[in-house]
Amino acid sequence: MGEPARAPHDASPLSDPHLREHGLGGVVLSRGRFLEVRRDDVLLPDGNQATREYVVHPGAVAIVPMLDDGRLVLERQFRYPVGRVLLEFPAGKIDPGEDTLACARRELLEETGYHASQWARAGVVHNAAAYSTEGIEIWFARGLSLGTQRLDAGEFLELCLMDESELEQQAASGELTDVKTLIGLLWLQKWRAGLWPLDWVDAGSAAPEIINR
Amino acid sequence: MGEPARAPHDASPLSDPHLREHGLGGVVLSRGRFLEVRRDDVLLPDGNQATREYVVHPGAVAIVPMLDDGRLVLERQFRYPVGRVLLEFPAGKIDPGEDTLACARRELLEETGYHASQWARAGVVHNAAAYSTEGIEIWFARGLSLGTQRLDAGEFLELCLMDESELEQQAASGELTDVKTLIGLLWLQKWRAGLWPLDWVDAGSAAPEIINR
Repeated sequence: MGEPARAPHDASPLSDPHLREHGLGGVVLSRGRFLEVRRDDVLLPDGNQATREYVVHPGAVAIVPMLDDGRLVLERQFRYPVGRVLLEFPAGKIDPGEDTLACARRELLEETGYHASQWARAGVVHNAAAYSTEGIEIWFARGLSLGTQRLDAGEFLELCLMDESELEQQAASGELTDVKTLIGLLWLQKWRAGLWPLDWVDAGSAAPEIINR
Repeated sequence: MGEPARAPHDASPLSDPHLREHGLGGVVLSRGRFLEVRRDDVLLPDGNQATREYVVHPGAVAIVPMLDDGRLVLERQFRYPVGRVLLEFPAGKIDPGEDTLACARRELLEETGYHASQWARAGVVHNAAAYSTEGIEIWFARGLSLGTQRLDAGEFLELCLMDESELEQQAASGELTDVKTLIGLLWLQKWRAGLWPLDWVDAGSAAPEIINR
């Protein structure tokens, strides 16, 4: 047990004592160029011990970019681990110290070339809570204007503009399998139906500097 | 490069040559008790090379269990990697050689104690396609009857029965953050609205033996 246990981001350590596990320390199983994997010993609610193995992830953002004509900006990208091209909303990992809106603006610009004048945070989702610390912050973007796409080296993707009904058809037919994109679609439809509100903020006043990062 | 590259489950190797990456071989970075992590070299669409690191996952199922009175069977479970209790539909990893319906029946019984007389496969979703091979098969279950819950050692969870509107409220308030559960809710609402069909099969004829596994 060479390193102290990572403290999970634990808002209410006293709640749910019949369910809660407590970290007792752990080790790094592997530290690759992109992925770090840990194993921690944990104290179970009944006093026994177990181990938990998980990927340490910096967190990510996903963006639901809405053009003024109602179409959505999506990407088609080959995902090697699943061996297929997925249709996805733009997304990316949060840099160290970066706030989530700054990350959302950066990823939208880099991957699609679009700036947005207004942003709204929908919420956070956990996509692999059994074995990854990742949370995906979902942001909506509107008031889009086209700048210049700046893909990372080794990043290949194809932009797709489609309206909500086309995306819905992709989901209904089973073609749309990416979780953040399905959840973005859900949130979009709830928002358009007046059920789930979004609080929009002006991009200029929120984080102007990161456009030029 | 000690091992051959895992062949991704690749239905259409000739499509999208401008996006597709080809595995060139790789190594196991770590093999824990639960998680195996690989690094593969890949050939990019432009002829350059890159590396991809990913978790090798056997796949999972998630179940949307509907009681005759309309309520849904959910669980609250502490998820160590994210340091909090999540509200989730029942789910679990597929055993080697197990088909997904057999896995769904097994996990529903083990975790909740319920048998279902009818099942329908909604589809598969990819929850971490950037760094995991995991696909989650989403099954609906109805005609539920209560048997005996058989949790694995070290597994602690609390069952919750709630109707669709309560689950929707949890999602709208940001309390519901688990992706498979949000997508199960989406599918449920689309199905109830008559938009996304489900093909129900009788459990008895589909895979009778696994109830006694």
